[in-house]
Amino acid sequence: MEEASIELLRIRAALETQRLQDAINILLEMHPADRAEVFELLEDGEQDILLPLMDVTSTADLLEELEDEAALDAIETLTPAQLADVLDEMEPDEAADLLGDLPPERVTETLAEMEEADEVIPLLGYPDESAGGLMTTSYIAMRRQTSTDQAIQFLRDVSAELEIPYYLYVVDRENKLAGVVSLREIVLAMPGTAINDIMQRDVIYVESTTDQEEAARVMSQYDLAALPVVDEQGKLVGVITYDDIVEVIEDEATEDIYRLASVSDNDLEPDSPINEQLRGRLPWLYFNTLTALFASWVVSNFEALIGQVAILAAFQSVVAGLGGNSASQNVAMIVRSVALGKTTVRQLWPVLLRQMLVGFLTGLAVGSVVGVGVSLWQKDPHLGLILGLAMLMNMVVAGIVGTVVPFLIIAFGKDPALASTVLVTATTDSMGFLIFLSLATIFLPYLE
Amino acid sequence: MEEASIELLRIRAALETQRLQDAINILLEMHPADRAEVFELLEDGEQDILLPLMDVTSTADLLEELEDEAALDAIETLTPAQLADVLDEMEPDEAADLLGDLPPERVTETLAEMEEADEVIPLLGYPDESAGGLMTTSYIAMRRQTSTDQAIQFLRDVSAELEIPYYLYVVDRENKLAGVVSLREIVLAMPGTAINDIMQRDVIYVESTTDQEEAARVMSQYDLAALPVVDEQGKLVGVITYDDIVEVIEDEATEDIYRLASVSDNDLEPDSPINEQLRGRLPWLYFNTLTALFASWVVSNFEALIGQVAILAAFQSVVAGLGGNSASQNVAMIVRSVALGKTTVRQLWPVLLRQMLVGFLTGLAVGSVVGVGVSLWQKDPHLGLILGLAMLMNMVVAGIVGTVVPFLIIAFGKDPALASTVLVTATTDSMGFLIFLSLATIFLPYLE
Repeated sequence: MEEASIELLRIRAALETQRLQDAINILLEMHPADRAEVFELLEDGEQDILLPLMDVTSTADLLEELEDEAALDAIETLTPAQLADVLDEMEPDEAADLLGDLPPERVTETLAEMEEADEVIPLLGYPDESAGGLMTTSYIAMRRQTSTDQAIQFLRDVSAELEIPYYLYVVDRENKLAGVVSLREIVLAMPGTAINDIMQRDVIYVESTTDQEEAARVMSQYDLAALPVVDEQGKLVGVITYDDIVEVIEDEATEDIYRLASVSDNDLEPDSPINEQLRGRLPWLYFNTLTALFASWVVSNFEALIGQVAILAAFQSVVAGLGGNSASQNVAMIVRSVALGKTTVRQLWPVLLRQMLVGFLTGLAVGSVVGVGVSLWQKDPHLGLILGLAMLMNMVVAGIVGTVVPFLIIAFGKDPALASTVLVTATTDSMGFLIFLSLATIFLPYLE
Repeated sequence: MEEASIELLRIRAALETQRLQDAINILLEMHPADRAEVFELLEDGEQDILLPLMDVTSTADLLEELEDEAALDAIETLTPAQLADVLDEMEPDEAADLLGDLPPERVTETLAEMEEADEVIPLLGYPDESAGGLMTTSYIAMRRQTSTDQAIQFLRDVSAELEIPYYLYVVDRENKLAGVVSLREIVLAMPGTAINDIMQRDVIYVESTTDQEEAARVMSQYDLAALPVVDEQGKLVGVITYDDIVEVIEDEATEDIYRLASVSDNDLEPDSPINEQLRGRLPWLYFNTLTALFASWVVSNFEALIGQVAILAAFQSVVAGLGGNSASQNVAMIVRSVALGKTTVRQLWPVLLRQMLVGFLTGLAVGSVVGVGVSLWQKDPHLGLILGLAMLMNMVVAGIVGTVVPFLIIAFGKDPALASTVLVTATTDSMGFLIFLSLATIFLPYLE
């Protein structure tokens, strides 16, 4: 960050004094990843001056590193022919991602001008969040009769363009995946050895329709640097590399954190434009308003009781709040455990029983302390008793809804982070008020 | 998961009929990662029967794949000599991790029996969460005069033991990092080329004291499969590989999600033992109880008011709840943005101004709807007005504390996820009650 800021200042200084070539040179001397970081910090006008002056390869490198939106902004002023040249230089999967975000007519125009359109076109059909949407077509596949020398020669001929140079895949005559061999194994084998003799036959792969999160899980579980992707006939169609997976894992974690906190736009940043903030945050705030008003309605039924014993209004939120806190703990654990592939829907019953017990014990622990404390503070043991009892009961409720709701969402094939926290705390709020005020009604003769 | 269960049943069946060798064979035929998954599902007694019957290499593979706690359980019954043999077969970084969790006297006994103790001992001194704690000493370093043929020959001699076979590092006579060359570049170079002529000089590295999260960020930003680690003199001391980084990213995401949900033990699972659940969850529940009781105290000061206008008790939680919800959105965005290296503490002011504006606008949007709705529902426009106004004001409060608190925690060098949600919602709860009930006091003559 520090360093990037210095380069940014130097580029701006060069631009202001019209030393365009200096500005370009500063950019080109940087690592492509840093270059992208600085480029994103430039104003649109500055970007539009610099981009046309960069050579095609550097532009391709830059676009590969930019975030999706920034890349789209940057290419806006390029002609289809210019864009086609740049896309030809990019990795096929990155080129396909960029094309996938363009309007259809621009895609057609650009593809018509591209030399390597046939590497990119097959990738355009896969959904963004599938293994197919993540893979590249830039890999080496060979037949099992190939010798190690031939493989190395082949590698020499094509290697500069390859994204995955450390694994070579073996296919049969129908292009079905038959084995994998690493560059290391090829180098270490005696010259002339057939790939068939050194390849590993038991290849771990995913299908192109597999969800990207599942693909990430497979690569992480088996410590793979590259994962082959096959179609429904078992034919090799692409390969996913570890750097894509790191991005998937980060994106999925962001998604879970945002969903748990009721933010519905995963690209939202603390300093995103106001309209994006409102779009990503207001829907859940409105939904939460509905659940909060339902809880208000529950309390409003006890208006007469509260009129008589107003101090109840001071403590009802303790019951609701602690229940919500406990339920959020439950939801977070289940969401994370499911995301990491450790918990499946079949574990509902053991988890439910355990969480009810945990709810009971935490309720006992917290409820007894609060009960005694409030008894002394308010000099009213009955108030302390019903408060402690209500907390105990609502923590058991929290254990139940905090488990059942996320598991129900999983059973419907959805992400349990999606609505769990809001739905679950809505329940613990309303139930907390209901339990506490109902108990107060029963014990009314003893209060105050 | 499905498949693992079948293997588990087959192993249990074999154990019950005393066909020990069959049970072992089923285990050994599996991929090491799957083997570890099944092994963890076995009872302690079953594990104790099987482990001594496995050969040293398979045991080493198994221990590398097991979770820390499961690995510790498994080796409990091994003698120091047996354990030393197994550790010799493991990757040095994995062996060091395991040793780091053992009691000091057991470590000394075991190291005395190990043949490759000198590869492991240097790793024992680094903190778990630093680059040094993550790196392995199993890499290739050579001098720049080495030729490509010599490098390949060297690789042939040592390769079977190597974890990072695709990058070779170049060091000077003081062992300072001078360059990096990939196996691909060595293979593609003319035989006899000096490494000096093909190596890349501008190596990206981290120091051994660097936090593991920062190391992960560097590898992810520059798409590196391996990252060299140097000491304070710039001497090469180890290398971190991509599979370690995937684990770090997953662990850090779990940590953020758990901290945001007030779970203080990152290893907690929905079905973890009761005592671990209580230990990981009760501390924050107690802390939350304190903040909830503070909010109760705020409300208790308005006891007389609520006694007069009991319906206020029904709506006070809407003000508090929506403020809390909005503040949680803020905290989640800042936590995630900081974790991904996109936001630094210097952005406090622009983010704060933006979030105050967002709080004002969401407060206006939600407050006006609720104000009008409750006016109609309760047939009391003054109640609607003070409710809407209080929501508006509390959402601005949410924007302020939801930004300032996490940034303050960052400024103190801590993780903003650590206490933000609880601290922030404690503020929005208390302030929500205070604002709403104060407004109600002012407007009291017009209520009901």
